[in-house]
Amino acid sequence: MPKFRLDISYDGSGFHGYAKQNGQRTIQRELESVLETVLGTAVETSVAGRTDAGVHAQGQVVSVRFDGEIEPARLQRSLNGMLGPEIAVAGISEVEDGFDARFSAIWRRYRYVLDPRPSPDPLIRHTVWHVGDTLNFEAMRDVGGGFTGMHDFSSFCRTVEGKSNVRNVEEAKWVERDGLYEFWVQANAFCHQMVRSMVGYAYDVGRGFSEVGKVSEVIKARDRSLIGTVAPAHGLTLWDVGY
Amino acid sequence: MPKFRLDISYDGSGFHGYAKQNGQRTIQRELESVLETVLGTAVETSVAGRTDAGVHAQGQVVSVRFDGEIEPARLQRSLNGMLGPEIAVAGISEVEDGFDARFSAIWRRYRYVLDPRPSPDPLIRHTVWHVGDTLNFEAMRDVGGGFTGMHDFSSFCRTVEGKSNVRNVEEAKWVERDGLYEFWVQANAFCHQMVRSMVGYAYDVGRGFSEVGKVSEVIKARDRSLIGTVAPAHGLTLWDVGY
Repeated sequence: MPKFRLDISYDGSGFHGYAKQNGQRTIQRELESVLETVLGTAVETSVAGRTDAGVHAQGQVVSVRFDGEIEPARLQRSLNGMLGPEIAVAGISEVEDGFDARFSAIWRRYRYVLDPRPSPDPLIRHTVWHVGDTLNFEAMRDVGGGFTGMHDFSSFCRTVEGKSNVRNVEEAKWVERDGLYEFWVQANAFCHQMVRSMVGYAYDVGRGFSEVGKVSEVIKARDRSLIGTVAPAHGLTLWDVGY
Repeated sequence: MPKFRLDISYDGSGFHGYAKQNGQRTIQRELESVLETVLGTAVETSVAGRTDAGVHAQGQVVSVRFDGEIEPARLQRSLNGMLGPEIAVAGISEVEDGFDARFSAIWRRYRYVLDPRPSPDPLIRHTVWHVGDTLNFEAMRDVGGGFTGMHDFSSFCRTVEGKSNVRNVEEAKWVERDGLYEFWVQANAFCHQMVRSMVGYAYDVGRGFSEVGKVSEVIKARDRSLIGTVAPAHGLTLWDVGY
């Protein structure tokens, strides 16, 4: 009974997020429906990152067990042939039975892109948050570093009662590229809306609504009401997952 | 009677090209309709590059004369407020009366992006031609240089009877960036489908259907039937215009 690892990317614009939800168009529903057609049997999948509505993925990972035989390359061709242009399977490999896309992952890496230029760029409007403000990028860059380390990120999480919000942020940095501000963040895992809250906070610092030095205070307070802005979903992309 | 220069960018995906055509949704129609609403009068515009259906623009230039008074910055805000997200006005400046977006331009610069990676990337599918072939990029790079100089480009033009196809190509080069192949070409002007024919020819060289050394022969022949492939419109962007 082979188990497969699927590396997929998608444009999340037209989907209600990754996870299945009654009646909604989601990535999981599309993917499992096509998998079931190709494999001729019901499947259960596991995923590295349950992205929210409108969030994209470049290197999302899904695992699926299949009670039968099929060549990974043939499966990939069939899936890409049936999936629309919004989802692509970049690779499929056979993995050992113990592999699980969600539980075997040791880190996730996200990219958020913010456009501070006065005029929006129509060609990247689906993947970039156009704020059109003049921002203090130096200050935003300093905020980035304040997130690294093991912290209780309750201030940056849409809290689910009784669940721990302690996460280990391995890297968090802002870089400028072609006039855009990119936020790259890697952690063992992320709680709900964590990246978008971090970006929102940095944005508030960049426009002078908040102070750089307060990052550690905000983290310590474990109080979500201290976060004024949650950046919109469409600027966010799950970039890569480590195993 | 002030004259304005508008620097605009657009996602050409949903348009039948730049130029007005009966009943079709075009950039010019959208832009002039919004201009007429804001200015309260009929306008005539001139444009640097009449892009084809599906072709995008980053630095397109339009000029318009207006018999009245309005602040460029206010005009820009009004236009951006009324235009949809597919078209953006990046800047407006007042120019001298002799300025004409089309006739004053001394060069146009285009970018074409080709994706040779096996799997398509859903996030850039509207601006990149995914060929999914392994290509000889060295050979394609050599083709680029063969286009430079003043030539009769009839082999690379959808010919219009009685019009000259002599153009001066100032630069033509392929560069690799993040695994994508970008073709950058600058000329005093371009004939119809010239960039897409150049890219199609380089692609045929890259996959071994044609030879690098033959570029000058193909140019000399002035025979459009020698071009096997015309690259699709959606990979092409009018990048910049020089005055």
